[in-house]
Amino acid sequence: MKSEIIAVGSEMLTPFRQDTNSLYITEKFNGIGVTVAFKSIVGDRQKDLVNAICTALGRVDILILMGGLGPTEDDLTREAVAEALSLTLRRDASQVAALHARAATWRITMPQNNLKQADVLESATLLPNLNGSAPGQWLDTTFGGYRKLIALLPGPPHECRPLFDIECLPRLSVAVPPRTIAVRTLKAAMIPESQADKLLAPIYTTYTDVETTLLAHTGDLQITLICSKPDADAARQRVDELAERVEETLEDWLYSSQGDSLEQIVLYYLELRQATLAVAESCTGGLVAERITSVPGASRSFLGGVVAYSDELKASLAGVPVELIGRHGAVSAEMAKALAQGIRGRTGATVGVGVTGIAGPTGATESKPVGLVHIAVCDAQGCDAVERTFRGDRNRVREWAAQQALDLVRRRLM
Amino acid sequence: MKSEIIAVGSEMLTPFRQDTNSLYITEKFNGIGVTVAFKSIVGDRQKDLVNAICTALGRVDILILMGGLGPTEDDLTREAVAEALSLTLRRDASQVAALHARAATWRITMPQNNLKQADVLESATLLPNLNGSAPGQWLDTTFGGYRKLIALLPGPPHECRPLFDIECLPRLSVAVPPRTIAVRTLKAAMIPESQADKLLAPIYTTYTDVETTLLAHTGDLQITLICSKPDADAARQRVDELAERVEETLEDWLYSSQGDSLEQIVLYYLELRQATLAVAESCTGGLVAERITSVPGASRSFLGGVVAYSDELKASLAGVPVELIGRHGAVSAEMAKALAQGIRGRTGATVGVGVTGIAGPTGATESKPVGLVHIAVCDAQGCDAVERTFRGDRNRVREWAAQQALDLVRRRLM
Repeated sequence: MKSEIIAVGSEMLTPFRQDTNSLYITEKFNGIGVTVAFKSIVGDRQKDLVNAICTALGRVDILILMGGLGPTEDDLTREAVAEALSLTLRRDASQVAALHARAATWRITMPQNNLKQADVLESATLLPNLNGSAPGQWLDTTFGGYRKLIALLPGPPHECRPLFDIECLPRLSVAVPPRTIAVRTLKAAMIPESQADKLLAPIYTTYTDVETTLLAHTGDLQITLICSKPDADAARQRVDELAERVEETLEDWLYSSQGDSLEQIVLYYLELRQATLAVAESCTGGLVAERITSVPGASRSFLGGVVAYSDELKASLAGVPVELIGRHGAVSAEMAKALAQGIRGRTGATVGVGVTGIAGPTGATESKPVGLVHIAVCDAQGCDAVERTFRGDRNRVREWAAQQALDLVRRRLM
Repeated sequence: MKSEIIAVGSEMLTPFRQDTNSLYITEKFNGIGVTVAFKSIVGDRQKDLVNAICTALGRVDILILMGGLGPTEDDLTREAVAEALSLTLRRDASQVAALHARAATWRITMPQNNLKQADVLESATLLPNLNGSAPGQWLDTTFGGYRKLIALLPGPPHECRPLFDIECLPRLSVAVPPRTIAVRTLKAAMIPESQADKLLAPIYTTYTDVETTLLAHTGDLQITLICSKPDADAARQRVDELAERVEETLEDWLYSSQGDSLEQIVLYYLELRQATLAVAESCTGGLVAERITSVPGASRSFLGGVVAYSDELKASLAGVPVELIGRHGAVSAEMAKALAQGIRGRTGATVGVGVTGIAGPTGATESKPVGLVHIAVCDAQGCDAVERTFRGDRNRVREWAAQQALDLVRRRLM
């Protein structure tokens, strides 16, 4: 069954605020085999809301509306659903009493507009809200001759989410044919998206029952496999089977078949090898260290590093021979190696990483363009070094360079 | 004029990924007086896409589609717009050549599926994409008898956003009836949102013609003032007047009244004082250095730093006296000061920063909880030091600590 989630509220149509409830609800939906086919965000205008509700009911079976159930003039979700489905609203006496009781515990006189929250759609079931004054509503109805399940939930996350879990999920589990969704995420580094797709499309297109999504971001490729079947084992088996073929095809581009991050994998290999790591960064300015240390427990394998922006610090902090800078320049293969070897020497780490480059927008020369990066990874056995020219602005070049550096460490440890 | 933004991509209908481009585009839209009436998220299914496009064209004047322009089988935005508007797609010869040229610079043979990206909608204008292979497309057309402006943009933020700025905004500015909106963004550091609102609400609520938004994120408070009037000068004057009162009220919490980032302000003060900066980080793991070096031209004032995770490196790299670690522990005010003074001594920087703390989830002791952070900023005149206990997970603690460190540098330089 297909669902749509509509977040209601003009504040979510500003540059400053985003709906996050839908991520939570999507996870719960997927768990019972419901796909989210559309998400929409609509402001507090009744006409727009009616339009969005009718559109949704024309294309999905289950509709979740979040927000617009409060007491103010621009809380219009109840009214919009009533208009879209030609239902009447009745003021519920027990809700009115509950609102008065609630106001009394807060020792305030209840403002008259609060009574809106006692308006119930004809044939709807009220869903008690443990964390706020506006109850949710549940409708099991028809639209255009088809059965539709509709929930009206309050917008604040601490009201919306428990209400969905306690009141909606059990009702949905009864209505939805039992299906289970198996999901797996595989990840590869530094392979161009088009190249990966060329390799993988002939395979995944034959798995018509598995939805395959490729998503690339600065050298990180995420491959998500989703399969929904009445039988849990069958769904899992199809996803695992395709995952295995993806693994075989992408070979050592692939760094995780369980969704781990590249920095997690690097730390995993370091622990496996009982090795330690130190980094000497120039153009990435701390980004490699920052990514590694974002992982809990990084301190078990990561010793530390230096950010050596100036030539003096490359010598004094990272132990690069002074004469080397004059001979080869700060952005060179020799410098990357000297940084990697220097930081190994200074820290006693098993593996040293050196990154130097021109992140831009300034600093380019005739022979050294913006985006040129040299990276070296050294251990007791020797060094791996790469030269790459990355495109994009300063932050893109830095992100690419950090990704490339982590991938080079991974390959050295493999 | 009303607009709708559709983000295309099945990954944004999972619990894991969210559209963020729409926030950026909304800000730019608002700047030229265009309201965003709806936002939608649709997966990579042509039928759903056509449905969403037709729905949008039935209710708004301007439609922005983001994503689905890549080379893979599930990139279907071009095809869906063609179906929705009954337009044909033609393969553009110059685009084919450009794709071949692009592949050549990457020294790869272009995969055949890449050619999809040269498919152009009949009557569309191609929008050159400086940061990727898929060009955008611009359509000035009619639907149901009404004029509609439609942009197809690539999904990756670094492609989507410049394309919108360079290619769409100028075209939209011509098409949209002139209105004047004055906008100003002020920024403050480390003030609790509730405290700021308590101070500011009595003021901004009297400016009923200025829309004021407060948005807080890990110690960074953004205050946006928006005013729309027939007369440009009048709108500007109201916003400036309120901005001045916000400045007076927030005093030195405020670090920018023009929307600059905290790291930009720190670098601005460093240049003003002809001072240099170096950092020694433990729990922030490179985050302070990374934020500073993300600003173009940071190398003029930022010398570098060390990430000293292990006690040995705190001594060998940052010059912390070995006996100090045993006496006070790695997380202490003394250690923060020793890191700041040590890195100053090692690098010759005017200002040294030391950060040490327990980011979690492990590492806490009875007297030192997760979230405890000591930060020191030292120069030739002395040291400022703070102890804070931040709430949240590992990354929240690290972000708070980096923000606090940068703010302490700013206050020292002020």
